Amino acid sequence: MNRRNFFKNGSLFALGSSLLNPFDLSATTLDHDLINKNKKAKNIIILVSDGMSTGTLNMADLYLSRKTGKGSNWLQLYKNNKVNRALMDMASANSIVTDSAAASSSWGSGFRIKNGGLNIGTKGEEYLPIWQKFKKAGKMAGCVTTVPITHATPAGFCVNSKSRNDQEGIAEKYLTQKFDVMMGAGEKYFSADYRKDKIDILQKFKTEGYQVVKSRDEMLRATNEKPILGVFHTDALPYSADRNNSKELTKKIPTLGEMTQKAIDCMKNNEEGFVLQVEAGKVDWAAHGNDIAGLLYDQVAHDEAVKVAIDFAEKDENTLVIITTDHGNANPGVIYGKQANQQFDSIQQYKHTNDWILNGFGKETSISQIKQRIEYANNITVTTNEANTLLKYYTNLNAEDGLYNPKNLPFYELAKIQKQHNSVGWISMNHSADYVELAMFGPGSDLLKPMIKNTDLHYLMLEAAEVENNY
Amino acid sequence: MNRRNFFKNGSLFALGSSLLNPFDLSATTLDHDLINKNKKAKNIIILVSDGMSTGTLNMADLYLSRKTGKGSNWLQLYKNNKVNRALMDMASANSIVTDSAAASSSWGSGFRIKNGGLNIGTKGEEYLPIWQKFKKAGKMAGCVTTVPITHATPAGFCVNSKSRNDQEGIAEKYLTQKFDVMMGAGEKYFSADYRKDKIDILQKFKTEGYQVVKSRDEMLRATNEKPILGVFHTDALPYSADRNNSKELTKKIPTLGEMTQKAIDCMKNNEEGFVLQVEAGKVDWAAHGNDIAGLLYDQVAHDEAVKVAIDFAEKDENTLVIITTDHGNANPGVIYGKQANQQFDSIQQYKHTNDWILNGFGKETSISQIKQRIEYANNITVTTNEANTLLKYYTNLNAEDGLYNPKNLPFYELAKIQKQHNSVGWISMNHSADYVELAMFGPGSDLLKPMIKNTDLHYLMLEAAEVENNY
Repeated sequence: MNRRNFFKNGSLFALGSSLLNPFDLSATTLDHDLINKNKKAKNIIILVSDGMSTGTLNMADLYLSRKTGKGSNWLQLYKNNKVNRALMDMASANSIVTDSAAASSSWGSGFRIKNGGLNIGTKGEEYLPIWQKFKKAGKMAGCVTTVPITHATPAGFCVNSKSRNDQEGIAEKYLTQKFDVMMGAGEKYFSADYRKDKIDILQKFKTEGYQVVKSRDEMLRATNEKPILGVFHTDALPYSADRNNSKELTKKIPTLGEMTQKAIDCMKNNEEGFVLQVEAGKVDWAAHGNDIAGLLYDQVAHDEAVKVAIDFAEKDENTLVIITTDHGNANPGVIYGKQANQQFDSIQQYKHTNDWILNGFGKETSISQIKQRIEYANNITVTTNEANTLLKYYTNLNAEDGLYNPKNLPFYELAKIQKQHNSVGWISMNHSADYVELAMFGPGSDLLKPMIKNTDLHYLMLEAAEVENNY
Repeated sequence: MNRRNFFKNGSLFALGSSLLNPFDLSATTLDHDLINKNKKAKNIIILVSDGMSTGTLNMADLYLSRKTGKGSNWLQLYKNNKVNRALMDMASANSIVTDSAAASSSWGSGFRIKNGGLNIGTKGEEYLPIWQKFKKAGKMAGCVTTVPITHATPAGFCVNSKSRNDQEGIAEKYLTQKFDVMMGAGEKYFSADYRKDKIDILQKFKTEGYQVVKSRDEMLRATNEKPILGVFHTDALPYSADRNNSKELTKKIPTLGEMTQKAIDCMKNNEEGFVLQVEAGKVDWAAHGNDIAGLLYDQVAHDEAVKVAIDFAEKDENTLVIITTDHGNANPGVIYGKQANQQFDSIQQYKHTNDWILNGFGKETSISQIKQRIEYANNITVTTNEANTLLKYYTNLNAEDGLYNPKNLPFYELAKIQKQHNSVGWISMNHSADYVELAMFGPGSDLLKPMIKNTDLHYLMLEAAEVENNY
């Protein structure tokens, strides 16, 4: 008996379709698998929302659904039954909780390595990074990100390095390997003005035929016929929430979606195809700061890049799109309470990140200035006690005291205050061991099983593209 | 070109299979969909780990992997590519964060209702609960749980009630509907000794032909030819961690897996099939208490019930197994740190729950008694300051002050102390808005799309079983 036909003619279907927003009978996971089965992925785009706990993905969808009536592009792919999904175990060689370098290297090399290194095995082995493998196979290769382009996630696809912290060295390695499009931030790792060795790496890129772009306009004007290095800020790019509320930053800094589009345009005509890594790097930084506006708006910016990639892939029909994260961070979520809906919706009014708020205070700031700035940024009235709690951190300012909070600012305290108003909680200010979300669209996606290890993704990308692993 | 053949003969496969634990080429999501397509589900078993955040699922798998070398049965199904998975949006009619009553009712009725009610619409409509629909279609129907059998989750499959709190009324409704196997706890809602109306509902069940069982032995001895009501404790069952370390409790209380097996055995020979709901109810209670031993060992008990259900379904070949949760709770996770592995592994030594620890203290308890009990239960040496922090809560004992912490015990403080030793963090002590994990095995599982609403599951169960929704 054919269940579909039975129900299409039966009462369930008739009742359901008219009244109940029922389970859609027309599509199953079977359909796109059949379409993609045994089809080669000429191109691969992998989008990484760095440090995205499952709760971050969910909250961004919920945020967009309630604000615009339409959820995220990422989860719309699920609702439309267009992807295969998996859980991915991201453990590194030495910890159940990975850092971004070991995470990216697991995809880059096919091996689990220790936290902190880039494609260097536990005995010092240098594994050929996957973007170099694809270059050897004739593909163009690039990365775009919202943090320094020399940061752990792009570097893990591209180079070997004993330490992710050697970002000046990583900048030089990019030049050696001649990747085709590398855009993001971190000018200080390329510029003679900042580098310890005072070498002008930007000039070296130019000498090798690269267009070096430093603003959104320069990026948009750049020809698609030559390689591009884009560094749009000294260190990381500003958060999307802060960029969106600044004319100056909106003019200077491209969005992640715009960088993604430019990178695709530069590489799409290569006969052997291309590989592109897109990273929303500051989702992780925001989670380290329990910074909800930083987190949600940068996750939304990542989601816009997802749309750019999928729009291209749907037309192209030869592109595997991989959407994932490298680890959880802070496991945020909306907490039960009578006012949960309204409190969560209040985040729609947030004009700026906690990073913006807290960097506006100093030893000399008054209590009323603290209250005003938070009122302006969050539409929250803090008490004098709360303002005092924040202020006392500025009398002990301790520069360069942490990777993600170098000025030792009271991110924890501010999030704790906000929690009473926005119902969002956090387990910590660091990475978590959670298995992560992974989705695939297009040729090769049928290879995905519902649970894989991080290292499996390395081999899946090669297999989907039919690139033999003889390196 | 056939990619599989290409790679089976190529170097990737040869290298991968010998050295690299590569992506397995032999199975894709396609295979089980093809097997299950258009096949009717004669039986349905739905297993609900109540209040299971994604982090709880992950941690239980990680815990088992590190302790035994073998992960959870739930995620083994993913690794073996035997299921379809989805995210499920569990919002209720009045909140993005559901309670268990509205969550269960969304599956029970196909409608979103307000938190607190059972299958009662926003205008007072009474929707026929799904287990009653299946009874009308000739199937046997039952529920097993670790909390009172009259609690929100089983009740949402079975009855209508304006309030989940009317557990005495719910007990009577079960009798009216004559469900075939109802086992768990909550004797106080059935017994004349406890009920306000002093009516002996247990006797009424007996009069209607039920076997009433109150211990594991009685359950195992009960015939499979007559209906069963099992109440193994006055209120909820003890936590698995505490049961496993008590000879008395191990003898008296069956595990969730044993209850599941008994329920299957009682109903499997019914010609028209059966439907069974299995709930690990105290996973939610443990999350409300940030009680890691309660959480993990009860999640493991749920996982053993998963194995019982899958073992039956694999042989039977006509059973749809649905594995899910009704909402997140506290979003726990293992936090990054140099000692994360060892600290997380230390939970393997926990002998008892925080519930057991804290219920052992009172006003008269000494600091050294507090230290000794925590040392015994967790192998943790707490400081005098920490012990004092806990002790001061007992001088303000406030009975019946909350649904999940009626004695106002210092669960929050104890978890905060433990966090320094076990690296586990929590966002709150309440439900979260996270979309939840959902997996399906067997006939009907091909109907699942990667993201659905809670209400879709109602219609999917009916469709999978080919039961027309003409009620």
